[in-house]
Amino acid sequence: MIGTEQVLQAAARIKGHVRQTPVLSSREINIRSGLDLTFKCENFQTTGAFKYRGAVNAVLSLDEAAVRTGVATHSSGNHGAALARAAMIRNIPAHIVVPANARAVKKAAIAGYGADIIECAPTLPAREQVLDQVVAQSGASFVPPYDDDRIIAGQGTAALEFLRQVPDLDALVVPVGGGGLLAGTILATLGEGIRVYGAEPTGADDAWRSVRSGIRVAKHQPDSLCDGLLTTLGARNFDIIGPHVAAIIRVSDAAVVDAMSWIWSRMKIVVEPSAAITLAAVLSHPELIEGQRIGLILSGGNVDLSDLPFQG
Amino acid sequence: MIGTEQVLQAAARIKGHVRQTPVLSSREINIRSGLDLTFKCENFQTTGAFKYRGAVNAVLSLDEAAVRTGVATHSSGNHGAALARAAMIRNIPAHIVVPANARAVKKAAIAGYGADIIECAPTLPAREQVLDQVVAQSGASFVPPYDDDRIIAGQGTAALEFLRQVPDLDALVVPVGGGGLLAGTILATLGEGIRVYGAEPTGADDAWRSVRSGIRVAKHQPDSLCDGLLTTLGARNFDIIGPHVAAIIRVSDAAVVDAMSWIWSRMKIVVEPSAAITLAAVLSHPELIEGQRIGLILSGGNVDLSDLPFQG
Repeated sequence: MIGTEQVLQAAARIKGHVRQTPVLSSREINIRSGLDLTFKCENFQTTGAFKYRGAVNAVLSLDEAAVRTGVATHSSGNHGAALARAAMIRNIPAHIVVPANARAVKKAAIAGYGADIIECAPTLPAREQVLDQVVAQSGASFVPPYDDDRIIAGQGTAALEFLRQVPDLDALVVPVGGGGLLAGTILATLGEGIRVYGAEPTGADDAWRSVRSGIRVAKHQPDSLCDGLLTTLGARNFDIIGPHVAAIIRVSDAAVVDAMSWIWSRMKIVVEPSAAITLAAVLSHPELIEGQRIGLILSGGNVDLSDLPFQG
Repeated sequence: MIGTEQVLQAAARIKGHVRQTPVLSSREINIRSGLDLTFKCENFQTTGAFKYRGAVNAVLSLDEAAVRTGVATHSSGNHGAALARAAMIRNIPAHIVVPANARAVKKAAIAGYGADIIECAPTLPAREQVLDQVVAQSGASFVPPYDDDRIIAGQGTAALEFLRQVPDLDALVVPVGGGGLLAGTILATLGEGIRVYGAEPTGADDAWRSVRSGIRVAKHQPDSLCDGLLTTLGARNFDIIGPHVAAIIRVSDAAVVDAMSWIWSRMKIVVEPSAAITLAAVLSHPELIEGQRIGLILSGGNVDLSDLPFQG
């Protein structure tokens, strides 16, 4: 299993390729919540999400032979765009398998980075089967979205950077879907005495159930508007998260929309539901963190402006 | 008439009370537009708009006698909130006359700063009449929204700060409604060889008509979704703007929504239509500014999330 060392190596490797994203706080949100919150704004990261960190680390980790044939993945969202953009750094091909029902804006983002888009039926088996064909034909290296050491280490660099910007945090709260960001954050902070919480939609609570039972839930039927958190917790991710996570906090979609509205209207930044869930988690469970200095990772800002969840 | 000196004095007066807002640029917007644009983000200013600069300057300019009786104004939007918040600095009363049809979120913001809200009929005569009564009863000092030397000088500090952050700008583009920001920007840059453009909705083009004819249009029937730009150009403002503005650029509401969508989705920040009009102006008229380094003032970020203009 990888450890803090791999996160440090990833940080050195991707330096100069990823943005050092700003850290913000909101006097008004702190006053109204009675909490002490600081936000790490990965919505300002290249491609609009922390996913770019892992993708860049994976692409820069390829050896010269692998570079020639490029990279491939399946994704309906941020990971596909991140890998497509990361491939541009080394000027290599990127093949992205995308479910046919993926949003047009997501496909446009991937295509905008010059990637080869292959559509497939909107099921996990179909995605994996089409990906296998693409890999067999192209010889490209598969870069998984989260169950991958290079990805986990790369995502951990967000927390590393956060702690350098704000050294006195007592706890971190990050979203959990497949577990790349949560596992990476845990590795980045091992031995620092910082508690790490995962925030997960109640309608996609496989990480919560996995941690609670000690057995990874390998299959579930997620239902949440947090479209970045519908994936199933990865095996490598669970091995890191299980023993170290302070708690997984489950959050309703209604609480996510409310938190998202607070962030948009008070901080004037665009974040996606999967990012706002961190604020929703601490607002729903202030008793976990009162009196402590809390860091929240706002994981991304990719939303469809023509389909926002705010009620008229 | 006031000049650059009054803007410099305002900057010294309000220092430490207003935020130095960040400057952002978007590689993607520059590539797609072929322009070189830098944005001054007054949406991150206290109260969510540049209006706080002028309000703070006015409140800090009051003499000790005036301070005791507080301040008053009429406003359905950002100026009312800005004055209410500025009054808190000196712990003085603020009386804000608000049309009965003003949005609940706007009234809540004003009330949240502890101001006294007085509702009136939604017409300019009603607003002025009720304000006169409030001033007569309370003895409060009237702080107009734009046709006021203290306000103009205060708004000019945004451009002053912008030019210190980005010293090599060739031109500035700012929205024009009542003309406080545009007049202040002109005063802040006099003699610097920087061209200053105003961006105005086609449906509220009184400044364009005033500059074109040389006679201030004192009354008009505005129709635009840029709710911060529906006011009529002020007399003091026109005297400053007329001789110095490079041009007033008129922009359709459709172009404003398109530009707003670019800023939200690519820069991940929340700006209001009255701010996005600056980008819309340069995208509609690239011939005016090609090859030059352009600064745009994003004037504010106060929107009603339940009533956004993006099409589904």
